[in-house]
Amino acid sequence: MPKKAQPWSGRFAQPVDEQVRRFTASVAFDQRLAKQDIAASLAHARMLAARGILARRDLKAIEQGLAKIGKEIAAGRFAWSVDAEDVHLNIEKRLTALAGEAGKRLHTARSRNDQVATDLRLWLREEIDALLKQLVGLERALLAQAAKHAALLMPGFTHLQVAQPVTFGHHLLAYFEMFERDRERFLQSRKRTNCLPLGAAALAGTSFPIDRERVARELGFEALCHNSLDAVSDRDFAIEFCAAASLVMIHLSRLCEELVLWANPRFGFVHLPEGYCTGSSIMPQKRNPDVPELVRGKSGRVFGSLVALLALMKAQPLAYNRDNQEDKQPLFDAVDTVRDCVSVMTGLVAGLRPVPAAMRAAVLEGHATATDLADYLVRKGVAFRDAHEVVARAVREAERRGVDLAALPLAKLRTFAKEIGPDVKRVLSPQGSLDSRSHPGGTAPAAVREAIARARKRLAQ
Amino acid sequence: MPKKAQPWSGRFAQPVDEQVRRFTASVAFDQRLAKQDIAASLAHARMLAARGILARRDLKAIEQGLAKIGKEIAAGRFAWSVDAEDVHLNIEKRLTALAGEAGKRLHTARSRNDQVATDLRLWLREEIDALLKQLVGLERALLAQAAKHAALLMPGFTHLQVAQPVTFGHHLLAYFEMFERDRERFLQSRKRTNCLPLGAAALAGTSFPIDRERVARELGFEALCHNSLDAVSDRDFAIEFCAAASLVMIHLSRLCEELVLWANPRFGFVHLPEGYCTGSSIMPQKRNPDVPELVRGKSGRVFGSLVALLALMKAQPLAYNRDNQEDKQPLFDAVDTVRDCVSVMTGLVAGLRPVPAAMRAAVLEGHATATDLADYLVRKGVAFRDAHEVVARAVREAERRGVDLAALPLAKLRTFAKEIGPDVKRVLSPQGSLDSRSHPGGTAPAAVREAIARARKRLAQ
Amino acid sequence: MPKKAQPWSGRFAQPVDEQVRRFTASVAFDQRLAKQDIAASLAHARMLAARGILARRDLKAIEQGLAKIGKEIAAGRFAWSVDAEDVHLNIEKRLTALAGEAGKRLHTARSRNDQVATDLRLWLREEIDALLKQLVGLERALLAQAAKHAALLMPGFTHLQVAQPVTFGHHLLAYFEMFERDRERFLQSRKRTNCLPLGAAALAGTSFPIDRERVARELGFEALCHNSLDAVSDRDFAIEFCAAASLVMIHLSRLCEELVLWANPRFGFVHLPEGYCTGSSIMPQKRNPDVPELVRGKSGRVFGSLVALLALMKAQPLAYNRDNQEDKQPLFDAVDTVRDCVSVMTGLVAGLRPVPAAMRAAVLEGHATATDLADYLVRKGVAFRDAHEVVARAVREAERRGVDLAALPLAKLRTFAKEIGPDVKRVLSPQGSLDSRSHPGGTAPAAVREAIARARKRLAQ
Amino acid sequence: MPKKAQPWSGRFAQPVDEQVRRFTASVAFDQRLAKQDIAASLAHARMLAARGILARRDLKAIEQGLAKIGKEIAAGRFAWSVDAEDVHLNIEKRLTALAGEAGKRLHTARSRNDQVATDLRLWLREEIDALLKQLVGLERALLAQAAKHAALLMPGFTHLQVAQPVTFGHHLLAYFEMFERDRERFLQSRKRTNCLPLGAAALAGTSFPIDRERVARELGFEALCHNSLDAVSDRDFAIEFCAAASLVMIHLSRLCEELVLWANPRFGFVHLPEGYCTGSSIMPQKRNPDVPELVRGKSGRVFGSLVALLALMKAQPLAYNRDNQEDKQPLFDAVDTVRDCVSVMTGLVAGLRPVPAAMRAAVLEGHATATDLADYLVRKGVAFRDAHEVVARAVREAERRGVDLAALPLAKLRTFAKEIGPDVKRVLSPQGSLDSRSHPGGTAPAAVREAIARARKRLAQ
Repeated sequence: MPKKAQPWSGRFAQPVDEQVRRFTASVAFDQRLAKQDIAASLAHARMLAARGILARRDLKAIEQGLAKIGKEIAAGRFAWSVDAEDVHLNIEKRLTALAGEAGKRLHTARSRNDQVATDLRLWLREEIDALLKQLVGLERALLAQAAKHAALLMPGFTHLQVAQPVTFGHHLLAYFEMFERDRERFLQSRKRTNCLPLGAAALAGTSFPIDRERVARELGFEALCHNSLDAVSDRDFAIEFCAAASLVMIHLSRLCEELVLWANPRFGFVHLPEGYCTGSSIMPQKRNPDVPELVRGKSGRVFGSLVALLALMKAQPLAYNRDNQEDKQPLFDAVDTVRDCVSVMTGLVAGLRPVPAAMRAAVLEGHATATDLADYLVRKGVAFRDAHEVVARAVREAERRGVDLAALPLAKLRTFAKEIGPDVKRVLSPQGSLDSRSHPGGTAPAAVREAIARARKRLAQ
Repeated sequence: MPKKAQPWSGRFAQPVDEQVRRFTASVAFDQRLAKQDIAASLAHARMLAARGILARRDLKAIEQGLAKIGKEIAAGRFAWSVDAEDVHLNIEKRLTALAGEAGKRLHTARSRNDQVATDLRLWLREEIDALLKQLVGLERALLAQAAKHAALLMPGFTHLQVAQPVTFGHHLLAYFEMFERDRERFLQSRKRTNCLPLGAAALAGTSFPIDRERVARELGFEALCHNSLDAVSDRDFAIEFCAAASLVMIHLSRLCEELVLWANPRFGFVHLPEGYCTGSSIMPQKRNPDVPELVRGKSGRVFGSLVALLALMKAQPLAYNRDNQEDKQPLFDAVDTVRDCVSVMTGLVAGLRPVPAAMRAAVLEGHATATDLADYLVRKGVAFRDAHEVVARAVREAERRGVDLAALPLAKLRTFAKEIGPDVKRVLSPQGSLDSRSHPGGTAPAAVREAIARARKRLAQ
Repeated sequence: MPKKAQPWSGRFAQPVDEQVRRFTASVAFDQRLAKQDIAASLAHARMLAARGILARRDLKAIEQGLAKIGKEIAAGRFAWSVDAEDVHLNIEKRLTALAGEAGKRLHTARSRNDQVATDLRLWLREEIDALLKQLVGLERALLAQAAKHAALLMPGFTHLQVAQPVTFGHHLLAYFEMFERDRERFLQSRKRTNCLPLGAAALAGTSFPIDRERVARELGFEALCHNSLDAVSDRDFAIEFCAAASLVMIHLSRLCEELVLWANPRFGFVHLPEGYCTGSSIMPQKRNPDVPELVRGKSGRVFGSLVALLALMKAQPLAYNRDNQEDKQPLFDAVDTVRDCVSVMTGLVAGLRPVPAAMRAAVLEGHATATDLADYLVRKGVAFRDAHEVVARAVREAERRGVDLAALPLAKLRTFAKEIGPDVKRVLSPQGSLDSRSHPGGTAPAAVREAIARARKRLAQ
Repeated sequence: MPKKAQPWSGRFAQPVDEQVRRFTASVAFDQRLAKQDIAASLAHARMLAARGILARRDLKAIEQGLAKIGKEIAAGRFAWSVDAEDVHLNIEKRLTALAGEAGKRLHTARSRNDQVATDLRLWLREEIDALLKQLVGLERALLAQAAKHAALLMPGFTHLQVAQPVTFGHHLLAYFEMFERDRERFLQSRKRTNCLPLGAAALAGTSFPIDRERVARELGFEALCHNSLDAVSDRDFAIEFCAAASLVMIHLSRLCEELVLWANPRFGFVHLPEGYCTGSSIMPQKRNPDVPELVRGKSGRVFGSLVALLALMKAQPLAYNRDNQEDKQPLFDAVDTVRDCVSVMTGLVAGLRPVPAAMRAAVLEGHATATDLADYLVRKGVAFRDAHEVVARAVREAERRGVDLAALPLAKLRTFAKEIGPDVKRVLSPQGSLDSRSHPGGTAPAAVREAIARARKRLAQ
C-alpha cells in the first residue's frame, strides 16, 4: 500500500490544497464529540464481533485502544491534528497506531455520515438531560420565592401601566408555567433525538449482516432511525433543540427585562443580589444589573443559531451533503448559551429581595382597583359597559384631584353612580381586590398557594 | 351616559387621531377569528348564566344575537368597521345593537386580553387538525408511490455525486419519516395550544365566581392556563407552530429541490404531472417545475414568520402589551403557507412518473458499487481501510478507461487485490448491491416493502 | 391559431390543475405593480418603434390601450383575473382585447423575467423616495422638540440606572443621528435599485437591435444592469431595502421602548399626545401607549421579511427561478410597515410633552454627578482610578444616609479626600455637570444648540 | 486605598459571585481587539497630554508601557485574566503594573463605553479593508476565467431547464456584477463605521477640555460621532456589516450551488481543482465538491449573526446596556466566515476547468434556440404572441420525434409557419443565437469581451 495523506485519498492524484485543508477541517470544534464517538465505536465494534464480522481478538484490541484514547483525551494529552480532519479520523488514526490492523477494521459497515449523526445525537441527549435538571433547579428557585411572597402585594402591569393588584408570588408563578412548557418540549424532542442512525452507513445501509437493535440497546437509544437516507441527512433534532431553546431564552429575557426595570430606582421593586451586579469604570455610583442584561442580550444569539440551521437545511437534496458540517457550531453555541443562562439565573432568582413598600406605593398611584369598582357596579345590576363608563369618569375626577381612585370620598363616588354604597371601600382596597380573585389561576394569595402546591407536585413527578 | 367613540374612551378628553385609528385597528385581519370569537362568547355567557352572574333572559338575548351575527358574517353581510378596532368590539357592538342591555353585560368577567388569546388558540387548534389530515394525505401519496416503485433502481447521492444504488421507493420513504416527525410535533404542540386562557381577564383573574372548567369543557380545551398573567401574555403556541411549520417547509423544500433536479433534462429522472408545470412567456419550449420552485421559495417565508414572532416576544415585560397584536399576521401567513404547500405537493407527488431508464443510466456511470467491492474484500479478510484503498485505485483505473467500475475485467480487478474472485460480479451489480442491504432501514426491496407495511400501520393508528 | 388558456401554453397537452392555478397565480398581490408595468411597457414600446421593430401605428394602438387600462385600474374598474396569472399577463390580455394585433407585438424583445424586475425596481424607487421624505419629516419633528428642550435636564441612563445628567434635547438628537444614517443608507441603496433590467429578456438578452439606454432614460434609471443573467436573477435591492428598513425599525423600537418607559407612572417623564393612546376594554383607568408598543412589535415583522428574502435567494442557481415570485410579499410588507411606522411616529414625536419636574426628581435620586466629582478630583491631581475609588466610598455614605451624593455636607466629603473644597458644589450640581460637557457631541445646552444648527443644515441640503 | 477586586468595585460590599464572574467576562473573545485598544489608548493619552490634562512624563510612561504590552500580546506572553473581565481592564491593569500612577490616569475623560465602541470600529475598518482586497482578488479570478471562456457555449438555465445559449464567460460575469455591488456596499458602510466615538465617555461626554478631532486624525477616523448617547449605543455598523456579508454569502452560495450541480456527472460541465475536493471514508469512488458545499452551508451562519444582532439591538433603551457585549461574537464570526469563504473561493474559481463538450451536448438537447425562432418569425411580420405559439407547436413535434428543435427539417418547420425560409438555420444554431445578443449586457462573445474590458477598468479605479 502506498503512503497516503487521508483514509479516502486513494483515488486522488493531487493532495488537498493547504488552505482547503484548514477550511474543511472540523476537528477544532467536533473534538467535543470525542466521548460519544468512542462510545459509539465501542458499541459498533461489539456488535460486529457478535455478528462474526470482526474477530474477537480485534475487538479486544479496539476496546483497549479506545479506552487508552479516552484517557488521553480526558487528560488533555491527545494530539489532535488538523490533517486528520475531524474527531472521527483523529481517533481512528490513533487507534490504528495503537491497535494495528484491528483499527483499520473498525470502520467496517459504517460511514462517517451515520457516525457523526450518532455522535451528535448522543451528545445532545446528554445535554438535554443536564438542561432539564437545570430547569428544575430554576423552577424550584421560583417556587421558593413564590411561596415566601405568595401574598406580597405588587402592581400588575399591562402596557407597562399599572393595571390591577397582583402578588409577587403570582407573578413569579407565570414564569414557572413557561419553564414547565419548556421542559415538556425538551422531553418530547429528546425522544426524537434519541434514535440510532448507525447502520445507515453512507446513505443506503450496508451489505454486512448488522444488528442495529443491539447497538441501540447498548447506547441507550429508544428507537432506530427507520430509513437510511433520512438517518444520515436528518438534522431536525438540532433545529428542534434550537427552537425550544429560543423559547427558553424568550422566557428568560422577559424575566430579565422585568428585573432591569424593577432594579431601576424609579421602580425599586427588588434588590438584585450584589454578587450579580457590577459597577462602572467611570461612574462610581453605578450598580448595574449586568446579568439580566447579558441574558437578555444572549437571546438573540440563540435565535441566530436557529436561523443558521434553518437556512442550512433548506433545499438540500438527499442524502448527506458537506453543508451539514455546519450544523455543529450553531448547535453547540445554543446549548452552551441556554445552559449558562438558566444556571446563572437560578442563583439570581434565589437571591432576589423584593421591596414591599415600593411595590405598594406603585399600586396606590395607579387606580389599580378601577376594575373592581366596575365589577362592584355590575353586581349591583349595572351593565358592564355602563359600569366601565362610570368608573372611567370617576378616574378622571381622581386624576383631576391628583389622588388614587380609592381615595375619592364616598359622596363623590356616589355622584357617578347612586348604586355605590359604603361597602365599596373593601372593593377599592388592594387587599380586597386580591382576595376576590380566588378562582384557579387567579392572584388571590389562597389561589397562589394552591398553585404552588400543585407546581411542587408536578416537579416531584 | 354621554356618547363616546369607544367602549374604553370614557376617560379620554380627546378622540383618537385618525391616522392612529387606522394604524392600531386590527379588524382587517383579526376578523378571521370571528367564528371562534362567537363560540367563546357563547361559552362564556352560558357559564355566567350558570353561575348566576348573568340573567337567563340576557343569556337568551345574547345567544340569539350571536347566532344572527354568525349568520351575517358567514353570508358576508356583516358590516365590519375600523372604528370598532377589532373583531371583538365589532361583534360586541353589533350584539348590543341586536340584544340591547344584554350585549353590554357580555363582557362581564373577561377582558380582550384573555378573549383574544382564547380565540387564537381555538382557531389554531382547528388549523392544526386540518393540517394533520393534509399531512396524512401527503404521506399516503408517498407510500403509494413507494409501494409501486419499491424495487425501482435509482442512484443514491451524497454530495450530489452518485454514491450507491438505492430504490426510488426507499428514497420516497425518507420523506415519509420526515413528515411523521412533523405530525408528531404538531400533535404535541396542539396539546399545549389547547388550554383555556379565559378567566384570566386582563391579567389577574376576576372578582366574579366564574367556572373555568365549564368553559373549557364546552370549548373542548384539555386544560386551563394555570396562571392568569401567563394566560394573557403567552404566545409560545404561535411560535411553536411556526417552528414546526418551518421544519415541514424544510422537508418540502428538500423534496422540491430534488424534483427540480430530477426534472432537469440532464437528469430526466421524473416526469412531473403536466398540470403542475407552466411555460414561459418568451421561450416556447419551456416546461417549468413551477410548483416545486414556489414551494421551495415559500419556505423562507415561514422562517420569516418564526423570526418575526421570536423578535416580537423577546424581552416583553408581563403581562399583555399591545405589541402582541402583531402575533396574528405572521401566524396566519405561516398557517396558510404550510397548508397550501402540503396540499399542492400531495397532488404533485401522486402524479409523479419516474423514468427507470434514466435512473439506471445514472447508476451505471457513477461507480455506484465501489463500496460493495470494498465490503467484499473485507469479507475476504482485508481490513476495511486497506480494502477502501484497493477499490479507490480500481476506480482510478476505471476512470482512466472511461468505464464504470463494474465494467472492469476480472483479470484487471485481480491486479489490485488477489482476493477478488468470479463471485465479485454479483457484488458489483446494482441489483446485488440493493439486495444485500436488507437490514431494517436498508434499501433492499424487501426491506423497503417491510418499511411500507410498518408505515401504513402507523398511519392507521 | 387554436384557442389556448395561457400565452405560454402552446406546448402543453393538459391544462393547469385548478389548485395549481390558484397556487401559482400572483395577481392578487402583484397588481400593486400595475402603474409601473404600464410605464415600463410604454417605454419599451416606444423604443421598439424608434428602432423600427414595432410599426408606428402599433405603437399608437399600444399607447392608447395602455392609457385606457391605466384609467380602468385607477378607477377600480379593471377586471383582474387569476386565470391570467399575474399583473403582466392581465394587462397584456386586456391590451390585446383593446389594441388587437398590436397587443400581441408588445412582448417582442422582452420576457416576464426582465419585465417584473423592472417593475419592481421602479416601484421600490418610488417607495424609497416617499420614505426618504417621511424620514425628513420625523427628523424635523425631533429637531423641533430638541430645540425647544435643548436645556431641559433629564437623567441619562446606562443599564437603565441613572448615570449622568443630560438634556432632553441632547437625548432626542441621538435619534436624529440614527435616522440620518438611515437616510444615507436608503439613498445609496436607491442608486443600486435604480438600474434597468429590461433588455435582459429571459436571461441572455435578445436578438433584436434594442436601445437599452433609451428605455433607461425614459424611465429615469441611472444605469443599466450590466449583465443579462444578473439582471433577471438579482434581488439584492429588495434584501438591501429590508436590511435598511430593519435598522429604521430598530431605531424606532428603541425610541418606543423609551416612550413606554417614560409613560409609566413611576417615570412620568412625558405625556404622550392623548390621540395616540387607547384605553382598556376592562380597566377604566388605563391610558395605554399603544402606538409605541405596536411600532416596537412591528420591528420583528421587518426582520422576518429580511430573513424570508435571505432564505429565498440562498443557493438559487442562475438565472430566474420561480422561487423569485416570493420576493414581493415580504418586500411589500416591509415597505408598508416601515412607512406606516415612520409616519405615525412623526405625529407622536411632535406631540410629546416632557414633564421637567419628574425628570429632575429622577436626576436628584441617582447620584448623577458622581463622575463629575471624580473628574474634579483628577483636576486636583488625584489619579483617575483613585478618584473613582474615593467617590465610590462617598456614594456608599450617601446611600447609607438615604440622600443623593450632592447632598452630602462638604465636611463629610472632605473625609474622603482632602482635595475637596467649597468649589465642589458647582461640580455636584446637575447644571454644572451639563455645562461642563461642551465639546462637540457633548450634552451642554450650548453644544446641543450647535448640534441642532448643524443638523438643520444637513436636512436643508 | 483599600484593596479591591475591580476598578469599579469601591461601592460594593460583596464580591462578585464566581459563576457570575465567568458569565460576564468577555476577555476570552474581546482580547481580539487588543491592538486597537492600545492604538486608541495611545491616541487618547497623547490628546490628554496635548491638552494639559496629562503630564508629559505620564504620557511617556504610558507610551512605554503600552508598547511593551503590545509586544507581550504579539508574542503570546501576555497573561490574560478572567478576573480583569475584558480586554480593556486587562491592559489597564498591566499598564498600571508597568507604569505606576500614570496607568491610573489613562482612563481620565473616557469610559469603557466609548472605548469599546472605538476599538470595535477600528477593528472592523481593518477587516473591511482586508475583505475589499479579497473581493477584488475573487473578481480578478472571475474575469480571468471569463476572458478565457468569453465565447465558450453553455446552456443558460431558467427554472433549471435549458433556456437559451449563453457563454461561460457571460455566466461568470453575472457573479462579477454581484461582487461589485458587494464592494460598493462595504465601501459605503466602511465610511459609516469610520467615525470616532471617543469623547462620548459613558454617555454624556466629559467635563475635560478634550480635543476629539485630534484623536480622530491620529486614528484615521473620517468623522466624529456627533452625539454622545448615540456614540456609545450605536451598533448599526455591525448590523450593516452582517447584512452586506449576508449578501456576499448569497452570491457565493449561488455560485456554489451551480458548481455542485456542474460537478455532478450528469452535468459534468466543470472539473473542480482536485485540491479542492475530498473523498469518502466509505465510498472509494467519491470526489466530492466539499468546498462549495461548505461555503453554501456557511451562508446560514452569517444570516444567523445578522439575526442575532437585530434581536440584540431591538428595543434597547438608550444609552449603553450590557446586552451590547453580545455584539462581538456574532460580528467576529461573520467577518471570519465571509473572509474565509471569499478567500477559498478565489482559488477554486481560478482552478475551474470547464468541459466544452458536456456544455454543448446540454445545449443541443434543450431546444435552446426556440426563442430565436420566435424572434425570427417576428422579424418576418408575425406578432410575437402568435410566433410564440407557432414555435411551441414545433417544439412539441421535435419532442415527439425525440430531437432538438434545430434538427427538424425545414419542410416540417414550414408546416407550422410558411414564413420560415432556409435562412432559419443560422437562427437555430447556438452560435447564431449567441452572436445576435450583442447589445450591452447581452451574451454575444463580442459583448462579453466589452463587458470584461469595462470590468477591468472598474477594478483598476
